[in-house]
Amino acid sequence: MLYIIGLGLGDERDITLRGLEAVKKCHKIYMEAYTSLLSFGLSTDGLSKLENLYGKSITLSDREMVEEKADDMLSESRDADVAFLVVGDPFGATTHTDLLVRAKKMGIDVKIIHNASVMNAIGICGLQLYRYGETVSIPFFTETWRPDSFYEKIQRNCMMGLHTLCLLDIRVKEPSLESLCRGRKQYEPPRYMTINTAIEQLLEVEQTREESAYSEETECVGFARLGSEDQMVVAGTMRQLQMIDFGAPLHCLVITGKTHPLEEEMLNFYRCRT
Amino acid sequence: MLYIIGLGLGDERDITLRGLEAVKKCHKIYMEAYTSLLSFGLSTDGLSKLENLYGKSITLSDREMVEEKADDMLSESRDADVAFLVVGDPFGATTHTDLLVRAKKMGIDVKIIHNASVMNAIGICGLQLYRYGETVSIPFFTETWRPDSFYEKIQRNCMMGLHTLCLLDIRVKEPSLESLCRGRKQYEPPRYMTINTAIEQLLEVEQTREESAYSEETECVGFARLGSEDQMVVAGTMRQLQMIDFGAPLHCLVITGKTHPLEEEMLNFYRCRT
Repeated sequence: MLYIIGLGLGDERDITLRGLEAVKKCHKIYMEAYTSLLSFGLSTDGLSKLENLYGKSITLSDREMVEEKADDMLSESRDADVAFLVVGDPFGATTHTDLLVRAKKMGIDVKIIHNASVMNAIGICGLQLYRYGETVSIPFFTETWRPDSFYEKIQRNCMMGLHTLCLLDIRVKEPSLESLCRGRKQYEPPRYMTINTAIEQLLEVEQTREESAYSEETECVGFARLGSEDQMVVAGTMRQLQMIDFGAPLHCLVITGKTHPLEEEMLNFYRCRT
Repeated sequence: MLYIIGLGLGDERDITLRGLEAVKKCHKIYMEAYTSLLSFGLSTDGLSKLENLYGKSITLSDREMVEEKADDMLSESRDADVAFLVVGDPFGATTHTDLLVRAKKMGIDVKIIHNASVMNAIGICGLQLYRYGETVSIPFFTETWRPDSFYEKIQRNCMMGLHTLCLLDIRVKEPSLESLCRGRKQYEPPRYMTINTAIEQLLEVEQTREESAYSEETECVGFARLGSEDQMVVAGTMRQLQMIDFGAPLHCLVITGKTHPLEEEMLNFYRCRT
C-alpha cells in the first residue's frame, strides 16, 4: 500500500492523527522536497523534528527522484506499506496526480490522507472561497522568457467580480545553464518568488497590455508562511503591498474581486496602515 | 483565546496534532452541529468518540446558538481557552467569518487551526484544483422557490473550460412552517441533497433556460462521504450519475470542464461502467 499523506502547512504538528498512524506502520518513508522545503524549515532542523516524531528516518525525494525513480518507490509499495509525505494536501497547489496514476496502473493500492492546503487556508483573510475564479501561477521572468498568460485569467476573474489566487514561482534544484551545457548536473540556489516581485511583474505586464485588468490601486492580500506560527497576512493596494517586507518564503498573493460587507469587515483587520 | 479548529472530513482521527493539543488545553469545547452532523456520524457514536479522544465533554452548538448566543462563548474566551470545532476547515465550504469578526471586534485573540475541506479534497478525482471556476451552491427547490442563479455561473465556467464544484444543500434544524405560524419552535427532520436530486434540478433549469450550458451528456464527478473510509467517487455523464445510489450523505458534484490528458487518465479510474 502506498500512502500519500498531506502534512499541512505549518510544522510537524500539522499532520493528522490518521496520517501519523499511517506513517508509524510504514516500512519506508519518502518526503517530497522539491516544492515546499523551506516552509517546513527543512533547511535547519525541520527534518529531524519529523523523524523524531515518527521514530523513523525519512528519505528526501527531490524532483528527479519523483520523476525518474518513482518506479522503485512504487515497487516497494507492492509488498510493504510505504509513505510519501507531501507538504499541504496531496492535491493542493502542487499536483501528485501523476504519481497516483502510475501507481494505479501498476495495480498498487493507494490511500490518500488529506490535509489543509494553500487553496483553502487563504480563507483566513475573510474572502469567501466560493467567490474565487481560476487560480493563476506567476513564473519568474527571465531576459527572454516573459510568459503572461495569467493576465487574461486575472482579467476574466476581475470582470466577473471574482477573487484570484496567484501562486508564486518556486525554483528548487534547477540545473544551472552552465551545468546543462557541460552535461554535469549542478544546481542553482533555490529561489522563491516574493510578493514584491510578483507585483512588479504583474504591473509590468499591465503596462505592456494596457487593458486595465488591474492597476497599482487594485486591492490585494499578501500571505507569507501561511498556516505557520509566524504567518503574515496583509491587505492593501498593489502599491502598498509592494513596499512591505514579507520576510521568509513561501509567499502567495490574492487579487481581490468584488467584496461583500462581511468580507470588507474581515479585510479591515488585515489592512496595512501606510 | 478562542481556537477555531478544523476537524477535517473523515472521523475523529482527522484532527491534527496541533488541533488536538489545543483542544486538550481548552476549558470549554463547543462544536458546530448545523452543517455537517452526519458526516461525523454524530447521530450515532461520533460525538462520544470525540469526547473519549479529547478526555472532555463537548457542547453541541446548533445554528441558533452560534447566531444568537455566540456572545456567551466569546465572553468565555476572554479569560479562558475555548475551542470551537468545525467539520472540514474553518474557512472551507461553510464560513465562520462572522464569528471571527465578532471575536476580533470584542478584542478576543483567535487562533485558526486549518484542516482539509471539500474545497481541496475534491482534488482526489484528478481534476486540477487550479482549473476550477467559481463554486456554486444548489438549494432545494420548493413549489414556489426555485432560484437558479447557479446556472449563469456554471455556464460561464463551462465556456471558459473550467470545472465547477457544486455544493449541495443541507437543511438541519429548519423550523417547520407550521411551527413558525404558531410561534413555537419545532424542527423539520434534517435533509441533505443527493447527487441525484442535484442533477434533476440542474436538468430542469437547463430545460427552462435552453441555453445549453450543459446537458444529460455533460461529464461530471459525484462524491459521497469525501475523506471518510467509505467515500465514493464516480465519474460519468449526468445521465449515468443520476442512476447511481451514492448512499449516505454528504454528497457533492463537480461538473467537468475541458480536461487535460492526465486529468482524463485519472477520471478513467473512477469512470462508471454502465
